[in-house]
Amino acid sequence: MAISEFDIISRFFDGRGPQRADVRRGIGDDGAVLRVPPGQELVAVLDTLVKGVHFPDNTPAEAIGYKALAVNLSDLAAMGAEPAWFSLGLTLPGRDVGWLEQFSAGLFGLAGRHGLQLVGGDTTRGALTVTIQAHGFVPCGGACSRAGAREGDDIYVTGTLGDAGLALLAIAGRYHVAGAGAEELRERLERPVPRVALGMALRGLVHAMVDVSDGLLADLGHVLRASGVGARIAVERIPLSEAMKAARDELGERQCLDLALSAGDDYELCFTAPPSSRGEIMRLAEAHGCSCRRIGVVESGGRLVCMWEDGRVYRTGRKGYDHFADAGRGSPDEKQ
Amino acid sequence: MAISEFDIISRFFDGRGPQRADVRRGIGDDGAVLRVPPGQELVAVLDTLVKGVHFPDNTPAEAIGYKALAVNLSDLAAMGAEPAWFSLGLTLPGRDVGWLEQFSAGLFGLAGRHGLQLVGGDTTRGALTVTIQAHGFVPCGGACSRAGAREGDDIYVTGTLGDAGLALLAIAGRYHVAGAGAEELRERLERPVPRVALGMALRGLVHAMVDVSDGLLADLGHVLRASGVGARIAVERIPLSEAMKAARDELGERQCLDLALSAGDDYELCFTAPPSSRGEIMRLAEAHGCSCRRIGVVESGGRLVCMWEDGRVYRTGRKGYDHFADAGRGSPDEKQ
Repeated sequence: MAISEFDIISRFFDGRGPQRADVRRGIGDDGAVLRVPPGQELVAVLDTLVKGVHFPDNTPAEAIGYKALAVNLSDLAAMGAEPAWFSLGLTLPGRDVGWLEQFSAGLFGLAGRHGLQLVGGDTTRGALTVTIQAHGFVPCGGACSRAGAREGDDIYVTGTLGDAGLALLAIAGRYHVAGAGAEELRERLERPVPRVALGMALRGLVHAMVDVSDGLLADLGHVLRASGVGARIAVERIPLSEAMKAARDELGERQCLDLALSAGDDYELCFTAPPSSRGEIMRLAEAHGCSCRRIGVVESGGRLVCMWEDGRVYRTGRKGYDHFADAGRGSPDEKQ
Repeated sequence: MAISEFDIISRFFDGRGPQRADVRRGIGDDGAVLRVPPGQELVAVLDTLVKGVHFPDNTPAEAIGYKALAVNLSDLAAMGAEPAWFSLGLTLPGRDVGWLEQFSAGLFGLAGRHGLQLVGGDTTRGALTVTIQAHGFVPCGGACSRAGAREGDDIYVTGTLGDAGLALLAIAGRYHVAGAGAEELRERLERPVPRVALGMALRGLVHAMVDVSDGLLADLGHVLRASGVGARIAVERIPLSEAMKAARDELGERQCLDLALSAGDDYELCFTAPPSSRGEIMRLAEAHGCSCRRIGVVESGGRLVCMWEDGRVYRTGRKGYDHFADAGRGSPDEKQ
């Protein structure tokens, strides 16, 4: 059954999820009217998911709703921001009530967990595209940044890396896994857990932070360029899930490591901090139920080097700097 | 020539247009860090344009860039807000440098005129879709609303109505106009002028305000429902452009009036205010170089009636409430 834009908004979006006192006016006017608390700055992030590009065609609507918000929450987490509001630009090929029910359930399930209110948006007809702008707060001057990494800092990542990439391989039939293992991988791809509380807790402790959305080497590369430094990564220290370890038999160690270093969509945090903060960082990670591992150190110069423990350089077969391939910059190991 | 996402951002978007002191951090991090001035509330609006839906396939890239921002500025104007920042979600089928040059020229041309800074966004691959979230300020409690219209208020519109709809008819070959007239119409469709300064000036004077994006009857209908009132519109008072008046010979008076009442994409302001404010409103409109006309009055009840001066009801052939057709609500004259 097709329904009107007005009905889509009132039935699936208006008044759902948390209703916050700092939203002076939400859905229903030409714009939302919002109040930023005194002493706080506003953090604004925006991410778009396109069907067939950012998620496979057969992704359940509930997972699309969840993930469209999760990737924005992950950006807020990387800034150390406390989530507050979001706006939704939803472009739909049709007006399928069942799809909208599932999509909005995924969206508001996650929004509720983080106290986020939907304050406005636009529903249009076209190829399935979901753009969310999310807003959060940081104390004035307190936002984390990509630009603060310093020589001698430790480099950390949360969780495990490469699982979303492994899930995509499995969906494409290029890796064979069944049962609970397949479910778990799919969950990692479709339902990344944004590290919001840990991101906020790390504010003031970290020198630089980024979320791992384009792959560790690419995103750490952003930090290094913004900070004017280089880094050395210990390949053996890259955190791998049990699912990834199990995949090594079929795929080989190299392909698994490459996934962990270069596949995107993990939405973990990568950050740098001085060695004096090690104890505090590990304590915070544990308090937030989030694994966290030191994987390398920040160095002078602009190079990003991956090393085996025995001192050999690890040359990844995938381009960690895919984004920049056309700009004359190669993958990290091409620079050696 | 195809270029990378990184190069698109640095070449066409980063550092262009006004650079504002209240932007603590703009493009280049996971999010923007923004400072709302003390005593001000934030107004957030979001609009999406989809190729083939919101603009014809052959629309010049420069016009798409202009219009994507203009429709958001028009929403800010309807709230009485002072424009400040915007974020851009740009989904592109390819990475055409010429197209991007024109698109960004249109975007930043308009942004510069209103002191608006681009603070972030996301560039993705897919069917051409442009989502902009724009931010503005209003003094605390001062935002205009759809919900304040009162019985006895005058109803005003700025500019002239229906021209964008007439331009679409001409593009579709259903209305025949050539030369300067065709150019002028096309300009009205592709380059609507958001009434930003007048919207801000009207703050505190108007009881309710909306921008005319879906057609006068539909948008005034939003105001009436939100305010719990009805209205009577004087058909002869609807402001028509010279281009529209010239079209009456070919199209007939009825079709021209229907365009003015129901066609969308005009981006004029429609507002209500008490009769005591007539002089002040006309003075402000003139000061802002914007024509403005009283077209009716707010009444009790929930009906929206269009009348000829001789007392006959005007029954439009188009549905002014298209958005709600499936919800069991008819067009305004079906309610009579």
